[in-house]
Amino acid sequence: MADPDLISEPNDYVLRAARGEVTPRPCVWVHRQAGRYMQEFRDVRTQHDFFTICRTPELACEVTLQPLRKIPYDAAIIFSDILVIPQALGMEVLMVKGEGPHFPSPLRTPEDIERLKLDADVARELSYVGEAIRLTRSKLGGRIPLLGFSGAPWTLMAYMIEGGGSKTLSKAKAWLYKYPGASKRLLEILEDAIVDYLWMQIESGAQMLEVFDTWAEYLSPVTFNEFVIPGLRRIASRVKSKCIEKGIAEIPMTLFAKGANQSLEALSRLQYNVLSIDWTIEPAEARRLTGGRVALQGNLDPCVLYGSNDTIHAETIRMLDSFGPGPLIANLGHGIYPDHSPDALAQYVRSIQSYSRRV
Amino acid sequence: MADPDLISEPNDYVLRAARGEVTPRPCVWVHRQAGRYMQEFRDVRTQHDFFTICRTPELACEVTLQPLRKIPYDAAIIFSDILVIPQALGMEVLMVKGEGPHFPSPLRTPEDIERLKLDADVARELSYVGEAIRLTRSKLGGRIPLLGFSGAPWTLMAYMIEGGGSKTLSKAKAWLYKYPGASKRLLEILEDAIVDYLWMQIESGAQMLEVFDTWAEYLSPVTFNEFVIPGLRRIASRVKSKCIEKGIAEIPMTLFAKGANQSLEALSRLQYNVLSIDWTIEPAEARRLTGGRVALQGNLDPCVLYGSNDTIHAETIRMLDSFGPGPLIANLGHGIYPDHSPDALAQYVRSIQSYSRRV
Repeated sequence: MADPDLISEPNDYVLRAARGEVTPRPCVWVHRQAGRYMQEFRDVRTQHDFFTICRTPELACEVTLQPLRKIPYDAAIIFSDILVIPQALGMEVLMVKGEGPHFPSPLRTPEDIERLKLDADVARELSYVGEAIRLTRSKLGGRIPLLGFSGAPWTLMAYMIEGGGSKTLSKAKAWLYKYPGASKRLLEILEDAIVDYLWMQIESGAQMLEVFDTWAEYLSPVTFNEFVIPGLRRIASRVKSKCIEKGIAEIPMTLFAKGANQSLEALSRLQYNVLSIDWTIEPAEARRLTGGRVALQGNLDPCVLYGSNDTIHAETIRMLDSFGPGPLIANLGHGIYPDHSPDALAQYVRSIQSYSRRV
Repeated sequence: MADPDLISEPNDYVLRAARGEVTPRPCVWVHRQAGRYMQEFRDVRTQHDFFTICRTPELACEVTLQPLRKIPYDAAIIFSDILVIPQALGMEVLMVKGEGPHFPSPLRTPEDIERLKLDADVARELSYVGEAIRLTRSKLGGRIPLLGFSGAPWTLMAYMIEGGGSKTLSKAKAWLYKYPGASKRLLEILEDAIVDYLWMQIESGAQMLEVFDTWAEYLSPVTFNEFVIPGLRRIASRVKSKCIEKGIAEIPMTLFAKGANQSLEALSRLQYNVLSIDWTIEPAEARRLTGGRVALQGNLDPCVLYGSNDTIHAETIRMLDSFGPGPLIANLGHGIYPDHSPDALAQYVRSIQSYSRRV
């Protein structure tokens, strides 16, 4: 049943780093490691619509495993999309080639919140993700950990209002200033959905969870404190309380509030085990701000991967030196871009896994 | 000759704040205060192409003055575009409705640098900006200061390679890692052009200059230090040395390295008088990082202007309180968006100009 072609050496370093342990060697996985930079993924995409892959456990499992047959990443992350939650709440989301996600009917005013399926059983609507997790755990055969994930309330709210990408998020941010009460209501609806969804992923076998607040970087520190941090805090605390209540060993949780580096200290005081950081902050500075309270994940500028193998190696060593000896899960500072070469990723992983700290 | 309809009370507070003085009341102007949020500007745009307005001194002067007949801003900034320098270097730039600038033939490889007109006399090519400055100074009649500006080397380089907007700047950033030598050459070509251009603006009557590095936020601190800071430092120092050499009173200079908040301390040690900051940093934190070495400019989240007058007022007071008593030129954290209402801008300006510091 287990996939015999996976090339990763069996290890649980990512889980151990998340729990604050220093691992025998640095470990690494990469955001969007299952994706368009791999020919194998593009082949699947010529045959199947993006969300069909998400909704078909065999396909989601297959694309999750694809990169692990070529590159010895130390963890897998289930293939899915953060926008499955708006879908479960009744919104239509299309994936438009070359443009990204598109909502034909985004939320325009607070009244539109009532158009959502507020009584949806999100965990049941998204049970296909649970199935994909079960199947992938079995194919992984315990060799490396499997992560689940969800979008964070603010990022999902922003997509639901913008209806897709945006340079400024001006429509979504306008809500925070025009309709602060309705914004908080929407954020709480999303928070409840996220907690149920993450819990379902744990029950299905996810060994670690990441919460993506990709669009945190558009907010002022004050707005971030008022609208975002309370929900992020409650998501971690509710999921962890439920683990205790159900007698399940605590599942490590990672928060990636991209670009919210001004708030890194505050974020290190929530109940997340790991903070993922982008490349706009020096690793050593992130260590200083988080004061040993969390493990860190990140943070190579994805554009380094356009450089030669020597450049990739040198920049990777510089990054690892700057992170220093604390617990680390190496990753990129954002997702892999579609035009990255698998060879560049392989070099990145090699440079990390062969690193010995200079003393 | 002077325009009798300008409603600003005569003052030079922006120049005084830039020189580190505390002004009798906070002063304010706003990035893109001449722009599409005003019906008067849209009317001109229906008759004239964007770059035709830039190139026609009477039109550039007229749109520069338009907002000052409606809102009592404390400074004017000459209407132009940062992409006139790539044009002066021989690149074609079109302004595409609803999409922004477009370069039909962007730079693809270092060999393309040779396609540029490396011997162009940029100040002469852009003498129409000087004419517009002369005319506008005369129409302003000394009531409020007139600012000139230029794009910074990195932001111009990024546009010239990307060929327009981009979510990641991955093509331009790839150059920094693939072709570091050619990148530095291109940045220095741009630096020389910028210095000549800024000097021509001073000779034409610009009373203060702003350098826009809008795309600073895409870079890691290390890359920013290596590729960006040296050029920004030289631009200020070369322009200021030339003032001394020519016996002209020092012209205050502002640097807006958008989102480069990790580098704010370093930036405060160059020769700029003012650092403009976006809304992703608390004003008090920016004061702390810059330690009284510079005046600050900024930083309201433009999206606040979608709120009610009460919200705009409250957020503005909060911002001014956070900036504290040091020298300040109030502005937005970025440019006005086309869908902002002139009434919201008027409220913002009113809240600033009527502010009394609470003791």
